[in-house]
Amino acid sequence: MSETITISVDAMGGDNAPRAPLHGAKLLLREHPDARFIFHGREEVLTPLLEEFSELKPVSQVRHSENVITMDDKPSQALRKGRGTSSMWAAIQSVKDGEADVAISGGNTGALMAMATFCLRTMEGISRPAISAIWPTLRSDIVVLDVGATIGADAQQLVDFSILGAALARALFDIESPTIGLLNVGVEEAKGNEWVKDAGKILAETSGAGFTYKGFVEGDDLGKGTVDVVVTEGFTGNIALKTAEGTARQVGTYLRNAMTSSLMSKIGALFARQALGAIRSKMDPRTVNGGVFLGLNGVVIKSHGGTDEIGYKSALSVAYEMARNDLLAKIGEGMKRFPALALPAEPSNLEAPSA
Amino acid sequence: MSETITISVDAMGGDNAPRAPLHGAKLLLREHPDARFIFHGREEVLTPLLEEFSELKPVSQVRHSENVITMDDKPSQALRKGRGTSSMWAAIQSVKDGEADVAISGGNTGALMAMATFCLRTMEGISRPAISAIWPTLRSDIVVLDVGATIGADAQQLVDFSILGAALARALFDIESPTIGLLNVGVEEAKGNEWVKDAGKILAETSGAGFTYKGFVEGDDLGKGTVDVVVTEGFTGNIALKTAEGTARQVGTYLRNAMTSSLMSKIGALFARQALGAIRSKMDPRTVNGGVFLGLNGVVIKSHGGTDEIGYKSALSVAYEMARNDLLAKIGEGMKRFPALALPAEPSNLEAPSA
Repeated sequence: MSETITISVDAMGGDNAPRAPLHGAKLLLREHPDARFIFHGREEVLTPLLEEFSELKPVSQVRHSENVITMDDKPSQALRKGRGTSSMWAAIQSVKDGEADVAISGGNTGALMAMATFCLRTMEGISRPAISAIWPTLRSDIVVLDVGATIGADAQQLVDFSILGAALARALFDIESPTIGLLNVGVEEAKGNEWVKDAGKILAETSGAGFTYKGFVEGDDLGKGTVDVVVTEGFTGNIALKTAEGTARQVGTYLRNAMTSSLMSKIGALFARQALGAIRSKMDPRTVNGGVFLGLNGVVIKSHGGTDEIGYKSALSVAYEMARNDLLAKIGEGMKRFPALALPAEPSNLEAPSA
Repeated sequence: MSETITISVDAMGGDNAPRAPLHGAKLLLREHPDARFIFHGREEVLTPLLEEFSELKPVSQVRHSENVITMDDKPSQALRKGRGTSSMWAAIQSVKDGEADVAISGGNTGALMAMATFCLRTMEGISRPAISAIWPTLRSDIVVLDVGATIGADAQQLVDFSILGAALARALFDIESPTIGLLNVGVEEAKGNEWVKDAGKILAETSGAGFTYKGFVEGDDLGKGTVDVVVTEGFTGNIALKTAEGTARQVGTYLRNAMTSSLMSKIGALFARQALGAIRSKMDPRTVNGGVFLGLNGVVIKSHGGTDEIGYKSALSVAYEMARNDLLAKIGEGMKRFPALALPAEPSNLEAPSA
């Protein structure tokens, strides 16, 4: 890794592209002057737009891509249509070629995962990739995975996810031995699916080698921040993530309605303006933007597609931190600590992810 | 059903039993003077306690049970130990014998489900029971099932849950054709597990026969109240429920901390006292207490074990409404509308539920 951090940006992905990703990059640059950017997309759009962001221009390159992957493209279609020719593919290719430290896109998640898996391949010993969310809790941020890369998982995949999640927690939070919990419907050993129970047994036996296994956790442990890393399969993880986002919005709406319901409450809201503003920014989904693709030979970050420059700046910050803290090396170290768990590499699974 | 509604209460189940269930019953009676109670448990405890609740005494009977099922009893142990002799079993037996319209317990969920299934048996055409939550949303309350009775489900079970959920919505909300959504990781047809996709096809074909199938919904549709009934398998449903509860508590804590963080915010909180109180009661988990067991030949309600008299009163209200609105008959009607779906009855599944 060079002194600077180069971020490869799919500048055409997401509802507000390409303006929002470029604007987000400008905001990141103010915080991290050592950031560099490669923007992939239609040159006739990007080059004039970059003129508007004069600070960005000296640290950025524009790379022309003919195609743009849309939100409606199925992963398999996207691969056929966009391999080699789309801004999404090119953003990932820059990481593979070593000219960028990390790639980011606000485009179609399924297509991005399919392309990232096809282009970068899964790491040796990891059979399926995962998407990890960085989840705000009452204690501190935690890592939750998988939130939608892989639908269905067996015990070995959950163990893989644990290793990946622990490495991410080490890279992000600088914790030597992150605590890990398996998401389940109860904390007793007899609870849950067979694959969760089996994964629990393997993790209990290997606890101590770079992580501390704390057993099963339940849905409400997410908000409490009971453990540093919560591991689950992608279907459940995706639903838990969106349920939490939806509930936060629901309570936020209750609060807004209540504080504007009467003259007295409006006066109260005036006095408490600063406190209410602090809650609002704490609950702002834009500040927790950035899903980390784990298990590939390269780091790819997924931004929400509908976000603005603030959201992109958050996702770009995650990308920057992943590269600066050398996530891939930390995962590699993590894998080495588990010789028993590192299975022989399977052929990369090219089946289109469903999320 | 008689003019009065008789509720059979496992008076020994839950952390605050037997005082909390009796106190809750007293609160219910004030709202519904036509409620009657059979309290099951240790007579030497219940009879003197009932003296303290003088309003309750004339409308209540005490039935002695020797055993109490504990929170640590596994479902299979509970069945062996408590069949016929425990307050939990006796509460259910009263429904089977027709002397009560509905049963309620705050005890061990897995044991309660095992006993209810063993004693009441599943309805003809339904292979597995479900637990349904009544979920507060931005629009109105909705029905969400299964939240933990059955771990794993096939397409037919999700269709069964849809019929049961629609009947519950009709009984609770007086909607003729409730809208139904299947919980998934995306709204496109290609998303999700095979069993969710297959269930979606069956529901799309039969939509109109007592419910309106709206397709897939995502985790954030729960809080929005996009549909009247959200159907999912028990592992995911349980995790979604607890994630939502945890997130609501998390945001509540943010709010409390913010409103006490400075003199100005404290003054604001004073002015907005009424508004903040309204939110607090809206988010009070005690007011949404009461899981409904569906798919059995009798109605059983599960109360949270750790709740107090306010929580018991909520769960008893759900029990009362279920009986008053004749939930079982409504489910029966719902089943008749789906002759194609009503499979031949399988032998009751006595496998211990995991939740």
